[in-house]
Amino acid sequence: MIITFLTDFGLQDDFVGTCHGVIKRITPEAEIIDITHGIPPQRVLQGALVLRNTLPYMPVGVHLAVVDPGVGGSRRPLALRDAEGRLYVGPDNGLLLPAAERFGGVAEAHELANPEYALQRVSRTFHGRDLFSPAAAYLAQGVELGDLGPPVAAETLARLDLPQATIGEGKAEASVLYIDRYGNVQVNLDREDMEQIEIAPGTRVELDCKGEHYYAVAARTFADARPGDILLYEDSYRNIALAINGGNAAEMFAAQPGDAISIRRASP
Amino acid sequence: MIITFLTDFGLQDDFVGTCHGVIKRITPEAEIIDITHGIPPQRVLQGALVLRNTLPYMPVGVHLAVVDPGVGGSRRPLALRDAEGRLYVGPDNGLLLPAAERFGGVAEAHELANPEYALQRVSRTFHGRDLFSPAAAYLAQGVELGDLGPPVAAETLARLDLPQATIGEGKAEASVLYIDRYGNVQVNLDREDMEQIEIAPGTRVELDCKGEHYYAVAARTFADARPGDILLYEDSYRNIALAINGGNAAEMFAAQPGDAISIRRASP
Amino acid sequence: MIITFLTDFGLQDDFVGTCHGVIKRITPEAEIIDITHGIPPQRVLQGALVLRNTLPYMPVGVHLAVVDPGVGGSRRPLALRDAEGRLYVGPDNGLLLPAAERFGGVAEAHELANPEYALQRVSRTFHGRDLFSPAAAYLAQGVELGDLGPPVAAETLARLDLPQATIGEGKAEASVLYIDRYGNVQVNLDREDMEQIEIAPGTRVELDCKGEHYYAVAARTFADARPGDILLYEDSYRNIALAINGGNAAEMFAAQPGDAISIRRASP
Repeated sequence: MIITFLTDFGLQDDFVGTCHGVIKRITPEAEIIDITHGIPPQRVLQGALVLRNTLPYMPVGVHLAVVDPGVGGSRRPLALRDAEGRLYVGPDNGLLLPAAERFGGVAEAHELANPEYALQRVSRTFHGRDLFSPAAAYLAQGVELGDLGPPVAAETLARLDLPQATIGEGKAEASVLYIDRYGNVQVNLDREDMEQIEIAPGTRVELDCKGEHYYAVAARTFADARPGDILLYEDSYRNIALAINGGNAAEMFAAQPGDAISIRRASP
Repeated sequence: MIITFLTDFGLQDDFVGTCHGVIKRITPEAEIIDITHGIPPQRVLQGALVLRNTLPYMPVGVHLAVVDPGVGGSRRPLALRDAEGRLYVGPDNGLLLPAAERFGGVAEAHELANPEYALQRVSRTFHGRDLFSPAAAYLAQGVELGDLGPPVAAETLARLDLPQATIGEGKAEASVLYIDRYGNVQVNLDREDMEQIEIAPGTRVELDCKGEHYYAVAARTFADARPGDILLYEDSYRNIALAINGGNAAEMFAAQPGDAISIRRASP
Repeated sequence: MIITFLTDFGLQDDFVGTCHGVIKRITPEAEIIDITHGIPPQRVLQGALVLRNTLPYMPVGVHLAVVDPGVGGSRRPLALRDAEGRLYVGPDNGLLLPAAERFGGVAEAHELANPEYALQRVSRTFHGRDLFSPAAAYLAQGVELGDLGPPVAAETLARLDLPQATIGEGKAEASVLYIDRYGNVQVNLDREDMEQIEIAPGTRVELDCKGEHYYAVAARTFADARPGDILLYEDSYRNIALAINGGNAAEMFAAQPGDAISIRRASP
């Protein structure tokens, strides 16, 4: 059984390796796919978006995700099943829901409350190791969701506010969702939004970000723009993104997730 | 058979991947758990502490660890067995001993001297690849410890000086052991030390670090402190640590492993 | 079947994990060895050198490599077989050839053109996920190279210009190939070059790099030099490299891949 694993733990410390060890002690035949552990520390929204974007590419299995600034507090530890049968384990802070909703929504939710399926001593600061990894390992063995703890009503689960763009006359007020290793800047717009403001491949575009003004061109791929050009394109997860051909757009804009960015057709 | 793997190699270069390849060529059925490769370059003490902290969470197997500033010099390459049957492979510089001593101490030690269980050409600078990974792979196949080379007397093994704290009247002079991705600062104190200086959850605490003075509060978990508060808590490996709720304590203190830190009950 | 995997994707984002997911959905029994994902973004030459250096340490299998600044443009996606039977998947930009030539050269090359062996929707910016990972997964299942697309003549494959050193009278004009985590500086010279300019272990050496002048000593290993000394040595991949015993040579030289470096015997 596959367990996918996404966290903000980074790879500098032992956190990820220790969770692998815990899982393998409980379920030696489990196979773990590390989606990423590079979610910026405690950025639940980033984690939720990456989990939602990547799960369609993953084998169906147990999907363990931990970005958990509220560890040790009152937020509930959860296991969920979506309408298509995928299982999820993680904190009740909204991290799991955008992914589960992509697959028909939450069919069943339980609070992790049964100490039989946790480590013997559960620390107050590392539930990834002591609570979530064991639960994922037992689910991968075939333990029933209902054995992990009492049911939780789906409508009581914590939800994130996904940032909404404003689409106006030939203009979108958007915000930065994600910046990747190449400095590509993903924004909360999709192809339909671009059609609405009449930006198509080849259109010249004006951008405002952090008080600076930029010109860009809408394109299908990097190869359609000249080196150094800013391009606006649909990225591989079907979000609209900004890049510089041969450069780093995030550095040029000094952009961070959450920053506002305004996009409009250039005046002719 | 499980091989756990801990180094200071980082993940930027191919060092870790190349060792995986070497292991898999020799023992295709070996399964490797990467504990971490983020030990700061050549910090043997850091590596030893992380190995000691994490092994209880790992399946029993062959525990390969390489932090090896003396590679190519006169330090011996080793394979050990602890009193509970775990096997260890790594350099004779103290890296392996704190872990082995947690499991009853070194029962048997051998120098890696048999060229049958190394790569054909052993470089002078990458024993991780040429000597240690092959030894671990052969041990995982069931090769006997004694086949790897001559026995070594346990009392001749190199030992690290673990930094010792001084516990005084309501006051501890400690030092920084480890800083994690979140900026949490682990110090060489445990719960018993805190009891001795009468610091319990809720106690107000004064800290001195690098000439600066700070106030903190002892707490069970992050959720017990207000955002921005410095808290002193028992971390998930049962070391005392300092954190800032929602912030980065290591940055605030400008602390590095080895820095002195003084901790005492605040005057009422 | 083993798939080795080398990219410039980094581990901060989900790119590597997503490719693992894609491979495992297609070929659940495939086993993936991550050689490295730390190739600097879009540095095809770096990727090609690391692939060539490391493949001899890898089990024979499918060797997937993606450093692909031309994604979405006209460069062909490829699958190759070398004379010893290893299979390669990656872009036609020179990345795969230095490795394949180490094992007898390209015996057979095909363009990835059969949509049956790609994801249903192939994005314009992430062929690693949509095209190369599926091709590697199907090859690992035993699909024939010829089923992936039409043959490509080996002499039409893109080639990299490997930087050549100039060997003069007791002097070499070289360039920096690679800098590793420890700051060791690999240059495009080998032991034969050193013999030609009569530098042997123990020889005093002069270096010029970026307008600065340095003294170094040729040595067999770090332990042969005093702390702080610059040493010139044959590294574990049999390239000549520069290091500082206990320090970071790349930082001292402020060196980057591609920088010129001049090496000669010191005047007596």
